[in-house]
Order: sequence, then C-alpha cells, then structure tokens
Amino acid sequence: MIHTDNIIALATPAGAGAIAVIRISGPDAITMCDKMFRSVSNKKLLDQATHTIHLGHIIKDGKELDEVLVSVFKNPNSYTGENVVEVSCHGSPYIQQEIIQLFLRNGCRAANPGEFTLRAFLNGKLDLSQAEAVADLIASDNAASHQVAMQQMRGGFSNEIKALRDELLNFASLIELELDFAEEDVEFANRDQFRDLIERIIKVLKHLIDSFAVGNVIKNGIPVAIVGEPNVGKSTLLNALLNEERAIVSDIAGTTRDAIEDEVNIGGVGFRFIDTAGIRDTTDVVESIGIQKTFEKIAQAQVVVYLFDTESIFAHKSSFENIIQEIEKIKNKYPQKPLIVLANKVDAINETERKQLLDHIPDIKLISAKNKKGIEDLKLTLSNLINTGALRNDETIVTNSRHYDALLKALEEVQKVQHGMDSNLSGDLLAIDIRQALYHFGEITGEITSDDLLGNIFANFCIGK
Amino acid sequence: MIHTDNIIALATPAGAGAIAVIRISGPDAITMCDKMFRSVSNKKLLDQATHTIHLGHIIKDGKELDEVLVSVFKNPNSYTGENVVEVSCHGSPYIQQEIIQLFLRNGCRAANPGEFTLRAFLNGKLDLSQAEAVADLIASDNAASHQVAMQQMRGGFSNEIKALRDELLNFASLIELELDFAEEDVEFANRDQFRDLIERIIKVLKHLIDSFAVGNVIKNGIPVAIVGEPNVGKSTLLNALLNEERAIVSDIAGTTRDAIEDEVNIGGVGFRFIDTAGIRDTTDVVESIGIQKTFEKIAQAQVVVYLFDTESIFAHKSSFENIIQEIEKIKNKYPQKPLIVLANKVDAINETERKQLLDHIPDIKLISAKNKKGIEDLKLTLSNLINTGALRNDETIVTNSRHYDALLKALEEVQKVQHGMDSNLSGDLLAIDIRQALYHFGEITGEITSDDLLGNIFANFCIGK
Repeated sequence: MIHTDNIIALATPAGAGAIAVIRISGPDAITMCDKMFRSVSNKKLLDQATHTIHLGHIIKDGKELDEVLVSVFKNPNSYTGENVVEVSCHGSPYIQQEIIQLFLRNGCRAANPGEFTLRAFLNGKLDLSQAEAVADLIASDNAASHQVAMQQMRGGFSNEIKALRDELLNFASLIELELDFAEEDVEFANRDQFRDLIERIIKVLKHLIDSFAVGNVIKNGIPVAIVGEPNVGKSTLLNALLNEERAIVSDIAGTTRDAIEDEVNIGGVGFRFIDTAGIRDTTDVVESIGIQKTFEKIAQAQVVVYLFDTESIFAHKSSFENIIQEIEKIKNKYPQKPLIVLANKVDAINETERKQLLDHIPDIKLISAKNKKGIEDLKLTLSNLINTGALRNDETIVTNSRHYDALLKALEEVQKVQHGMDSNLSGDLLAIDIRQALYHFGEITGEITSDDLLGNIFANFCIGK
Repeated sequence: MIHTDNIIALATPAGAGAIAVIRISGPDAITMCDKMFRSVSNKKLLDQATHTIHLGHIIKDGKELDEVLVSVFKNPNSYTGENVVEVSCHGSPYIQQEIIQLFLRNGCRAANPGEFTLRAFLNGKLDLSQAEAVADLIASDNAASHQVAMQQMRGGFSNEIKALRDELLNFASLIELELDFAEEDVEFANRDQFRDLIERIIKVLKHLIDSFAVGNVIKNGIPVAIVGEPNVGKSTLLNALLNEERAIVSDIAGTTRDAIEDEVNIGGVGFRFIDTAGIRDTTDVVESIGIQKTFEKIAQAQVVVYLFDTESIFAHKSSFENIIQEIEKIKNKYPQKPLIVLANKVDAINETERKQLLDHIPDIKLISAKNKKGIEDLKLTLSNLINTGALRNDETIVTNSRHYDALLKALEEVQKVQHGMDSNLSGDLLAIDIRQALYHFGEITGEITSDDLLGNIFANFCIGK
C-alpha cells in the first residue's frame, strides 16, 4: 500500500525545551522541505545521502524563521519506509507552530495519531503487534512494562504465533488439497503429525493466555489494597513509599515530574495502592456499607496490606482482639490473596509492649511510616511477592487485550479442530475450523486486518508517532 | 578553553512524546556512546562521518534498552564545537531516564542549564549576545519577540557594536602610542576623525538604548489596562480575544496547550491585559483605595481600554455623564497614553439608542463581547497602535537588560571622552575613558566576561540547551 500524501507532526513532547523535532513523511517529504530549507552549504537535500544531517535555515516569506538541523531518511530506509525528513528546531512552541504551519500551507497534511507507525506497518516495516508495542513502549513507566514492550517490539510472541500459523497453514493446504481428490480417499496431511501440531498450538496458546493476567498487572501496575481505620497512618505510609521514589526520580533532569498519584515503582514494578476504610464489626447501616466497599476493593486487589496503629492498642482505644478479628476476616474471605500485616507507630511504644505485640499477633511487620522505619523491608516483601510469582526474566507475556481476545478465539477454534479429529470429522469441515483459527492468528500479527481494526489500534497512539 | 568532561541532558521537553532527544557533548561523547550503542550495521560510531545518523540499540546489562537513532557530530562541526552525540529514543520518560542514567554511570555528568550553549560560546561558535538570543528564541511566543531574537542570533546589533569597538580600539591604540612619544608631542590619532567616530558611536548607542523600551515590550508583551466596573463584560471581552486565538492554535497538534493566561497574541505581538476596577467618584474609603490601584495599573500599562455597558445606561443604572467623566479623568491623568473606549453590549440596544450613544460620547467603538462583534476591529486598532509606533520591520532592537545596562555605561564613558576632547583633556586621561567604554562594549559581545557574569547568563537557560 503506497501513500501519495505527506504527513507532518511534532514528534517531541509539547511545550518548550532546548529543541523540538518535527517529522514529515511521504513521497515528497524531501522535495517539499527543499523548498523551505536553505542549507549553509547551499546544497539540495534531495541530492544528499540517506541518514545525513544538514545545518541551515527554514525560510518563510524570504526571512529566516529558524536555524535548524534537517535529518534526511530516504525510502525505504526510514521509520515509515517512505521518504522522511526530521526538522530539529529551537524548542519554542511558537517556532514549532510556525514551521508546522509552513509545511501545512505547502501541501503537507497534519498526521493523525499513530499515523507514522501505521505507515510503517502498511509498508511492512513492522508487524501489527510490533506496531502496538511502540505505543506500549512510549507509555511504559517502569522496568517491567518496558521490558515486556521491548520484547514484543523485537517480535516477541508474534514470531512464535507466525511460526505456528505457517505450520497450520501448511496442514490446511494439504487438507484442502485432499478435498480435490475426495473420491480417491488419499491423505496428504499426516494425521498424527497434525494432531501433534494441534496439541503444541493449544499448549502455546494456553500459556500465552495465562500470561495475560501477569501482563496486565505489569502494564497497569499491581493493585494493592491498604486496609486500615482512619488515622492509623495510611497516607503517611503512602508518602513514605512515594517520597523515596520521587527523590530518586528528581535526580534526573525533571524527566518524570508529573508523578504518579498513588502508584509506587518498587524494584521496577508499579504498585497501585488503593485506600480503603477499615472493616470493624458494626451494626450501623452506613458503616456497614463502607465495609462492603472495602471488601469490594480487596476483591480487585492482588495484594492486601493491613495497617494498624500500635499506639492506640496500648492507649486502650483498640485491642489485640479487634485487630486479630479483622485480620481473620480478611483471611477467611480471601484465603488466596497475599496479606501483609503492618504494625505502625512502633516508635511510640516501649520494648515490653513490642514483645507483647509480637506475642499476640503472628507474622506482623513493625514499621514507623512517619520515621520511615521498616519501609525498605516492606518494599522488599512486595517485590518478592512478584518475583516468586509469575513475573520472571524473559518469558513471553501478553499484555494487549486485543491479542488476548484473538488468542482466546484462536484457542477455541483449534480446540474445535481437535474435537473434530477425535470424532473423525470430514476434511472439509475440519478445514473451516482451521481457516477460522488461522484468521485469529492473523489478526494478532496483522496479516488479517480491517480498516476499523487499524483505526482503533492507532487511535490510541500519540500524534507524531 | 577546552573542556575535558562530558555532559548530558534531555534536549526535548520533559514528558511523553513520540520521541525524545538526549544530547551528549564532550571529548569522549562518541567513544562513550560506542560502549552502550550497538548499531544494526555493527559499525563503531567513531568510524562514522560527522552529521550521519545510525540505527541501533542502547544496551544495558546485555539487554536492549531501546531502539534508537544516534546522530554523530564531530568536533568542531557541532553546536558546542565539541564531539556531540544525539540519541533519539522512544519518548517514554522511563526510557529517557534509563538512558541518561546509563550515561551518568559511564562517566557523563548532568549538564547545567545552558551549559551546551556556554560551551558553544567558550569554543567561539557564538558570541555572548548570540548565545543569549538562543534563550530568547526558545522563550519567544509571538512573531515580534521571535523576530527580535532571530535578528540578535544572526549577529544583530552585536555586529554593529563590534565594528564600532574595533574602530574605537584602533583610536585607543593610536592615542596610547602617542603617550610613548609624549615628549615629541605627535598626534597619531586624527582628532577630527576621532570626534566623528565618537559622535557616530553616541548616535548608535542612543538609538539602541531608545529601542530597549520597545524591545522590552516585544519580549514581555504590551501591557493593556482594561478599565471598567464589574459586569460591564471585561472577562467576556478577554475570552472573546483569547478564544479566537486558541481556536487557531489548537489546529496545530496541541503545540501550545499551556496557553497564556491573559496574554493575547494579536498580529504577532503579545498583549498582556490587566484587569482593573472602575474609577467612579466615591467618598467610600475602601473604594477610593481601589481607584488608587486602578490608576497605578494604568500607569504601568502602555495602552488603556475603557469598557462600559451601554445596556445599563439605557436602563438608567448609569449615565452618559458618568462615563464621560471617567473617560476625562483618564485622559487628564495620562494624556500621552493611547485610550480605546469600548461600548459593550450594543446588541441589547436599538438603533435610536445607538445614535444617542454616538452623539453623546465621541470616538467610541461599539462591540458585543458576548456575540464577538467588533472584536476583529478592536484587534486591528491594537495592532495599528504598535505598527504606527516604534515596532517596525528589521530595525535593530535591544531586549536584554544586561545589554541595556552595558550600553548605558558605554554611552556614559563615550560622552566622557567627548567632553574630555572638548576640554582638551590629555591623551592619558582620554585613554582611560576610552578603555572603560571598550570594556562595556566587550561585555555585550562577550570579549570581556567573568565567571559570575557567565554563570548569571546561563542560569536562565533551560537544561539541555
């Protein structure tokens, strides 16, 4: 598919900075730029080699609009596979706007979100799942989500899917060929090998489908419910977790200033903390609604942190029994969910009281959120929950719900094929199910697409990518 | 001056975008990058020509951190005059941070604000006023301030200053030479030519100094006081002026989203609107303080817009006499200040009332801020105020208060020289004043600098420039 129009967009974030990069792609990108660009060497960009950079000025109405560097990428050696020019200008929003307007007036069109990557896909520079990984990569804000996106961009599981699809396609052709010789009752497709392949495919699909739960967590952060009465120190705890992280982040040139509200990056994984009310016994209607809500939030979380105030126990405002009751309630309702029990404000109690505490309530961690004691230990505990779980090294992980859906559908079809073989279904009926499975495989890698599908995918991109 | 260390910073605005550019400058920029970069062609960056772009991966701990384009600029053909590498990575803040950290761990140092441009200055790529223009260029948010910054970057008045300085330096040398032959009473420096030069210099300096008022206005926007009682439609007027502009701006890929609060760009010039209370006669102490404040704000403004509500006149809540009184008060107090009188809400009155209005109050403009009537005409009027004033085409304009100070001091010294010549001052005393004038000239272009001065100038830059 070849585009005849030329698109332009700001490729760098909006706002003022030292420089900004404006990207133009299309058959006339270079000749168009030549009209507005006067290089210091007085040479035309069209005569330059690909992947070279040229200093000069953008000229508007005979005046120098800005001193810029222009990078030239020639078809097919560019991101989109088309001719591409990148104008690196001074980072004033005014200048960015003036340059973009100049190109718009000279026949460029403002690019839609993701349109550069869409062209890259349509020109065969990326498959569809790789293209989608580009958006994930840009959105990645921690080591784990970044790693998954990188893996997907390198081919990830789409290579695996492609290989299986090719094998399946091969069998499909053989079975369809048999249909042409139906009267002769031949078998081109070895049924044992085919059965093996189907089993292999089912195993891979199931594995990928299972990984989605993990993938989703990586992409969106692991939800952690913090359960605790008001004033036990929930927000102090959150701040203690956040502040440390922010201090690290702010070392690096204000890159991540608009920080995550209540998401904390621990050991490269995002944890989303969900504040909840306590769950003490009550006959009050309003309060019992609150408790209902707490349980709902716990249900959505993958990890539960129960926080209580030791000081209030020894001031007899609360009791060991209350705390133990609440912990038991959570354990009974969600036996599978990892639960971390934190005794806060331990700086306020003495050694005897501390011993009493550890005697009464098993498996608790003593912390002081205010004085940042025990916070590192808590982080380690959270990290370990993940590391001992599914999230490990380079395993292939599905994070995209579109892929997840396609995999589920493909599995369904492949299982139909399996059942069909078990019940000696005729070749023509088998072929239909195989074709259907192939269709869903193709959806993932983009061998099969529709305009609607592409529209949906690339609408989620930022402009300029 | 040669730097031995290597600096790094994000050059594009902070935040997420399609791409981000990280800039590294220093003697080892290229070799350092070679350690972390694996090009797809497997070639070393050090072996590549300057101004070329290379596709590959940034490698961290043996893993691909990101697919990037690396631009190589070799000393002295770079912005800073040093070896420069620009890494164009995916625009995720996480990735930006990871890459910057990787370089920091490998011996790079985080750049200070403006440090790249400081190096460009110290390596003779720019003079000081040109370097300062870079910051102005990035900060420019309208056609006029952009034009002034571009002109200054191209050399602007610093070329003029340099030429005069060279001539003055020449005379200074001749006069100082005379001192060596004091006993022989020779005159190497032609006194008539010298007097001509001094006169020429004074003329140029005065012209430049006068331009500062205009320059400052261009750089910071023209202050316009809107005077009017509450509810006459001041904020509706502001919105009418702003909205139109915003509509134009939003056409272009969200480039200037964090829009100016109450600054409106009209015909390429920024107008800063200052809201004031009315100035009606009152005996109330509190209110008279408000009127005091209104007058103070008018004093700071360059243009006054007086807005009143026609509807309230014909509803007899106000009267022609009141309005005329207030207009007269402003005119009497600030006879020099351009005053625009706007009759708002004219859609609400009939033709007869309209005639009455025009009969009673001279020189008014009828508008309806709500229905955006008369807004274009108002913009034209504001634009014309400027165009008929000092701001025209390519005239050299001083916008920098540091330059302004240096020019004032230089003028003082040159005038001393002139007086000295008038009173037949001896050559040795003349020479001192000339040297002093030369010093101030040199301050502008950077021939004479101190670490403090440079520190102050570049502290105002953004990081990455």
